[in-house]
Amino acid sequence: MSLPAEFHEIAKRVNNWGRWGEDDERGTLNLITDAVVREAVATVRTGRRTALALPLRQGGVQSGFIPGRIDPLHTMVQINQEMFGPGAVATSDDTVTMGLQAATHWDALTHVSHSGRIYNGRPADTITAHTGARFSSIATVGHLVSRGVLLDVARARGVDRLAGGHAVTPEDLDAAEEFGGVRVRAGDIVLVRTGQVRVVLAGDRHAYGHPSPGLSVRTPEWFHARDVAAVANDTLTFEVFPPEIEGLWMPVHALHLVEMGMLQGQNWDLEALSTACAEEGRYAFLLTAAPEPFAGATGSPVAPVAVL
Amino acid sequence: MSLPAEFHEIAKRVNNWGRWGEDDERGTLNLITDAVVREAVATVRTGRRTALALPLRQGGVQSGFIPGRIDPLHTMVQINQEMFGPGAVATSDDTVTMGLQAATHWDALTHVSHSGRIYNGRPADTITAHTGARFSSIATVGHLVSRGVLLDVARARGVDRLAGGHAVTPEDLDAAEEFGGVRVRAGDIVLVRTGQVRVVLAGDRHAYGHPSPGLSVRTPEWFHARDVAAVANDTLTFEVFPPEIEGLWMPVHALHLVEMGMLQGQNWDLEALSTACAEEGRYAFLLTAAPEPFAGATGSPVAPVAVL
Amino acid sequence: MSLPAEFHEIAKRVNNWGRWGEDDERGTLNLITDAVVREAVATVRTGRRTALALPLRQGGVQSGFIPGRIDPLHTMVQINQEMFGPGAVATSDDTVTMGLQAATHWDALTHVSHSGRIYNGRPADTITAHTGARFSSIATVGHLVSRGVLLDVARARGVDRLAGGHAVTPEDLDAAEEFGGVRVRAGDIVLVRTGQVRVVLAGDRHAYGHPSPGLSVRTPEWFHARDVAAVANDTLTFEVFPPEIEGLWMPVHALHLVEMGMLQGQNWDLEALSTACAEEGRYAFLLTAAPEPFAGATGSPVAPVAVL
Amino acid sequence: MSLPAEFHEIAKRVNNWGRWGEDDERGTLNLITDAVVREAVATVRTGRRTALALPLRQGGVQSGFIPGRIDPLHTMVQINQEMFGPGAVATSDDTVTMGLQAATHWDALTHVSHSGRIYNGRPADTITAHTGARFSSIATVGHLVSRGVLLDVARARGVDRLAGGHAVTPEDLDAAEEFGGVRVRAGDIVLVRTGQVRVVLAGDRHAYGHPSPGLSVRTPEWFHARDVAAVANDTLTFEVFPPEIEGLWMPVHALHLVEMGMLQGQNWDLEALSTACAEEGRYAFLLTAAPEPFAGATGSPVAPVAVL
Repeated sequence: MSLPAEFHEIAKRVNNWGRWGEDDERGTLNLITDAVVREAVATVRTGRRTALALPLRQGGVQSGFIPGRIDPLHTMVQINQEMFGPGAVATSDDTVTMGLQAATHWDALTHVSHSGRIYNGRPADTITAHTGARFSSIATVGHLVSRGVLLDVARARGVDRLAGGHAVTPEDLDAAEEFGGVRVRAGDIVLVRTGQVRVVLAGDRHAYGHPSPGLSVRTPEWFHARDVAAVANDTLTFEVFPPEIEGLWMPVHALHLVEMGMLQGQNWDLEALSTACAEEGRYAFLLTAAPEPFAGATGSPVAPVAVL
Repeated sequence: MSLPAEFHEIAKRVNNWGRWGEDDERGTLNLITDAVVREAVATVRTGRRTALALPLRQGGVQSGFIPGRIDPLHTMVQINQEMFGPGAVATSDDTVTMGLQAATHWDALTHVSHSGRIYNGRPADTITAHTGARFSSIATVGHLVSRGVLLDVARARGVDRLAGGHAVTPEDLDAAEEFGGVRVRAGDIVLVRTGQVRVVLAGDRHAYGHPSPGLSVRTPEWFHARDVAAVANDTLTFEVFPPEIEGLWMPVHALHLVEMGMLQGQNWDLEALSTACAEEGRYAFLLTAAPEPFAGATGSPVAPVAVL
Repeated sequence: MSLPAEFHEIAKRVNNWGRWGEDDERGTLNLITDAVVREAVATVRTGRRTALALPLRQGGVQSGFIPGRIDPLHTMVQINQEMFGPGAVATSDDTVTMGLQAATHWDALTHVSHSGRIYNGRPADTITAHTGARFSSIATVGHLVSRGVLLDVARARGVDRLAGGHAVTPEDLDAAEEFGGVRVRAGDIVLVRTGQVRVVLAGDRHAYGHPSPGLSVRTPEWFHARDVAAVANDTLTFEVFPPEIEGLWMPVHALHLVEMGMLQGQNWDLEALSTACAEEGRYAFLLTAAPEPFAGATGSPVAPVAVL
Repeated sequence: MSLPAEFHEIAKRVNNWGRWGEDDERGTLNLITDAVVREAVATVRTGRRTALALPLRQGGVQSGFIPGRIDPLHTMVQINQEMFGPGAVATSDDTVTMGLQAATHWDALTHVSHSGRIYNGRPADTITAHTGARFSSIATVGHLVSRGVLLDVARARGVDRLAGGHAVTPEDLDAAEEFGGVRVRAGDIVLVRTGQVRVVLAGDRHAYGHPSPGLSVRTPEWFHARDVAAVANDTLTFEVFPPEIEGLWMPVHALHLVEMGMLQGQNWDLEALSTACAEEGRYAFLLTAAPEPFAGATGSPVAPVAVL
């Protein structure tokens, strides 16, 4: 089995290898210039803030389907411990074990590979158990602040949530832009709302993952044309699931991460933001979403904040 | 043994219990209003960004002194795994186990207690192994964006790094304000630079923790007078170590977290920010520093970003 | 709510506090003398061995019902890593994160408490997040070799598996002794087979835990009369679930661990041993089942082996 | 760089590939027959037992030199938690994260590879992050009971501990046999005592690993000639460190695990056993040492027990 011709044709059209030099590890993050950040800051009017991360806890998003991608296990290693004797100031400390992609997260560019390659044409076997990803790990992201744009596809279509299996198309993105009175431009971080996260917020983590609305294999060209810096949405699978083309699994991941070198985010809770944007009548804002700099990691939890 | 009278007198002067209601769990974060955020945004001129987190990895900050506060252990659970058959798109996934206070982090208000109490007078035994902190866990913070001010005490004194055991006093803070041409005000997040992180950046994690420069027990009153929202610095211990008053360990933790209800950050890497502020001649900026929302946790790693 | 009078009456009859001294932490393990071990060794005839542990892996016994008691997460940290240069001998290394009671395990005496007490009348608050169990942790067990006796209640009743909710009574134990032609005596480790583990071996971890056959609240007196050293069975819950007396949860745990100071084992796979004993016509054997000596732990995985 | 001719010559002489069939995954464990076990049982006279595992805890054997091979981190997830309401029976539960080779352990045959091969000639790339070791994982060991023989090289030479860098030779093994009045035979598990574990028991984990006494590259032929089933000792490195032949690292590992298919154990505490054997004047005993059956793992903690 190999990837179908259709995939390779799209790949050719969106490929960014070499665009920022042979040594580049950051892909479309290069599009976030100081000027873009100044414009992002200029979108702020009221100072209203919305947090976009799901709580990190057992009984979260994961259903056990992906071995190793475990929900956060939080444990206390000190509880009001009087380290310096009775009556002294007491401390509490904790630890966590978790899959880095378990809840609200960014995929690093190295989260997927195809045909033995990762972003910028490097060999996939530069990812090892010993060091993790030698190139394009999540730690190469560093700061991540830009203009955010909410494309509220669900609200634009007048529904709380798109149906399972709904492939979000370029036409859906156009319509959401029009609905929001906003135009996506170079360096933006685009948040695509499907409403699917409502399933897991209502307590059904098994139904959350499949079937799921998600991005169509046709959308990477749209993001490429707009020179978007990163895309996140409110689903487990990011792209529509089951997939549009039988036997072609995770094509959007491969196009975004490997071909374009564009960060992807999943399990973002866009519900409160949807309300805020609707109330304010504005769909662009300052977005801050730096991943935790895990050395060698292919993903990281993130606690994004939108400032309107 | 109990805490000395001197401690209790300061405690009385800085206490914020009840100030934001009996049910409050967020303390001085209440000082970050929409107006404060608008002013924070207004400080941005160039759009230059600086990341303030140390890398998360084995061989990091921890020396084994505090059992359980282990450096991040990053492991790959999938490496270029062709989950959907040979030739398909391949995925890499990872996990981490770590002490939540292991590297660059925020202490939640519940990280310390004294005399059986946590912030707002709640009983300390509301922290359990089963649920962690029932009140004032790090998950109650949510978004965290405000004006940041760098008080570069080391640079103001013309040194790379304050000597081990140097207690940073209110007079040091005043001098750093004057040096930076900035005045700390309500809702600000104050970053106090001692330069101590250079020790661990140079590879000596054992010398990093002790002796260490850090905040004097006299500084909480300064922060209280200015109505600061949160304070972070570039040391392991936050306050001066060994302590100023023999036998009185961690008084600043107890005053900030328990009495004032003010977040504290440790192990922040302020070196690049020091350079940036010096180059730009400005010591106030937009700071974004949301912790990861670990349910019940008494701390969290954070990846702060300053935007100048 | 407090424990019913019926519980306290049984507790009085089986209590071993002080029997092996005020300082004792090992309870009925004191019954395993050198003479008992010599007799255990004398039961061996063929040298046939049977392993009794379930595999340790994701997708194991745990269904997520008990937060924190997570299935083992095994990760590779080195894979054929040529640490000493290309062409050198290469190493592979791994780590695990798991609940200590997740699969085949021993409960330490401190796994439960009631009325604020653990075994030998010590206060329950000697278990802390900082040190775990200060007394009677699993590390106090050390070696564990004795005569094992299989009481094959299922086979004695002519079934593959007892029905969910079947409470194994003293009469069931008597009948299994008679069926096996064996008499339980002081220092023995008794393995009670219900056949329930077949449910999880068949892949249904949700049905495994409830309803479940298990020991009746009447059996601790039987074990006490025989001066048994430890008891293990092939269920998740050990005792019958739902419980026999409404509102009285885990009475057998409390009687065995707290009152008698007797180790309990759960999730033991007794299927192959049942076949072996039936084929050999012998139900007593040499049993070796030392827990891993986790300092301060209230339980441990174990890999028991029966030698016939 | 490749392995020197000298290595390949020894490898040829001790190689067991195909000896127990092309499909074999257990190597020299095949030598432990029922008859060997009956003879092992027959060595028991007094029933005296000795546990050989070091405690599992932070501040244990590991010094941070091998990333990922972390000391056990034990955490409580429940402490006297009244799951079924106030006054009910209360439970305590715990978790652990650890390197599987962190303390007293067995290396699985797959712990090392050389020239792209593991035991029985299988390709080394059958070990993956996804499944761990597909063949010869530690889970293939199952039960492990045999005759144990202590070769107390330190005591035979009249010292508490061999000098760092002392290579234990075949002549040392012969002398220890003579000293103990015992002859190693097929299927035995041989324990070689150097006394080095005294260094870590005395608290110096840094000095424990290097320099270290350990097995010479000449000993695998001795073990092969005797058809030993497994070998363990009381050092971190197992073989002498630094190595005997410059630039040839871990040759004994490669010969034992890859060529012979023979299990190796490290960090066994043989101090109490040394005393017991000396007191009893017997150096052969029943040894039980089943690893925990971690699926896909290349090693496991073990809690061995010797019965004299």
